[in-house]
Amino acid sequence: MKRPYEKEGTDRLNRKRFCVILVNPENPENIGQTARAMKNTGFEELRLVGLESIDPEATRTAIHCRSILDRARLYSTLAEATEDRHLVLASTARFRKTFTLLPLAGAADAVLSYPRNARVGLVFGNERTGLSSRELGAANFVFYIPQATTQPSYNLASAVLLTLFALFSRSAGEIVAREPMPIPRKEQEDCLRLILRKLERKDFIHATNRTHVTEMVQDLFGRMALTERDRRFLLALLDRAAD
Amino acid sequence: MKRPYEKEGTDRLNRKRFCVILVNPENPENIGQTARAMKNTGFEELRLVGLESIDPEATRTAIHCRSILDRARLYSTLAEATEDRHLVLASTARFRKTFTLLPLAGAADAVLSYPRNARVGLVFGNERTGLSSRELGAANFVFYIPQATTQPSYNLASAVLLTLFALFSRSAGEIVAREPMPIPRKEQEDCLRLILRKLERKDFIHATNRTHVTEMVQDLFGRMALTERDRRFLLALLDRAAD
Repeated sequence: MKRPYEKEGTDRLNRKRFCVILVNPENPENIGQTARAMKNTGFEELRLVGLESIDPEATRTAIHCRSILDRARLYSTLAEATEDRHLVLASTARFRKTFTLLPLAGAADAVLSYPRNARVGLVFGNERTGLSSRELGAANFVFYIPQATTQPSYNLASAVLLTLFALFSRSAGEIVAREPMPIPRKEQEDCLRLILRKLERKDFIHATNRTHVTEMVQDLFGRMALTERDRRFLLALLDRAAD
Repeated sequence: MKRPYEKEGTDRLNRKRFCVILVNPENPENIGQTARAMKNTGFEELRLVGLESIDPEATRTAIHCRSILDRARLYSTLAEATEDRHLVLASTARFRKTFTLLPLAGAADAVLSYPRNARVGLVFGNERTGLSSRELGAANFVFYIPQATTQPSYNLASAVLLTLFALFSRSAGEIVAREPMPIPRKEQEDCLRLILRKLERKDFIHATNRTHVTEMVQDLFGRMALTERDRRFLLALLDRAAD
């Protein structure tokens, strides 16, 4: 059994040019869960502002993504953490009149309209206080994640996850978990005819219901995009049922 | 400052007919975080299979959503937890040949193609083992959440969050955080002309650069969808700058 992961080298967004910037995160679990969300969605660079070191507790939730924490860089100010970025997107859970706010989907689309080598910083604030107006003011885009209720807002790691997944969804290359190959359409049709013939031999079909049963069979099995495995199974089943 | 939440009574999906079903969850934190993800996205009904009680630890992460935990119902089997559902969607992180797998987006779209009062169960398995083939086989749809790498898979609460957010995104009513109203286009144009006149009076514009500066001003400020507040600020700023 495989996991449905992205085929290597098919990242259409060039995710290496993104970094996730957490400003004054308080809860080390959120750092670990952020690393995991990054790993899940194929982002690699983590920057932390206002921390002197990473609490070892962060590694507990950072399953299979220690390398992201090991390479994380520490900055004392947000300005330093963003100075090499071409575009800065900042997340807020509050509606401030001073900024034009984009919903997450709009922000993800906006990023895609810039050159594919623009370096992008995704900024998330402290769990309780979020980003200050001044920090939001230093971003090119301020975005919010739509929610159903006023309270609570999304947890920090959840906000990061939803943001990265929105970008990943717009960028993911070929996902390797795929539908199995159906048999060619002609063979699918042959199989349907075979089923109908079997039903006919068993007097399941007669003059008054022929059209109806034919349509039902086509509707039920015809849309299934039958695979070789399905075909063998279906025909065996009908043989057995008709005994 | 407001949070960008959904206006009451505008839920287009009728989210009350959904329930989230966790099968044998091990980590109480995941139960709490699931409740929070549900609250954030406007889902209310939680069902737990295979637990005798809810570990009090779950409430620690269930900020502002104790009511979801208080009303959560316990079942001893998945069959009992799904028997009143019209549609059952089960999540897997593994690609099994026996099932047709839909990516999350496809599964969310599929739900929308059924009647708006069909009761839907969203099933998620244990953190380590996921759902068994037999449990997956008892679902109408099996879906996976695309990911960038094979390891790690999404954390349980993360899988719930991404699933609910995908449904919420397709269903959310009017989100109350909105762009402020721009001034009518004519007033926007008047404002641009006023800016140009100010620049002209200060000899910033002359014969050889007139077209260029006009275009620049239109490009910079013309697309801004100026609000009343923007206009006042811009004009004040230019007055000051021109002193």
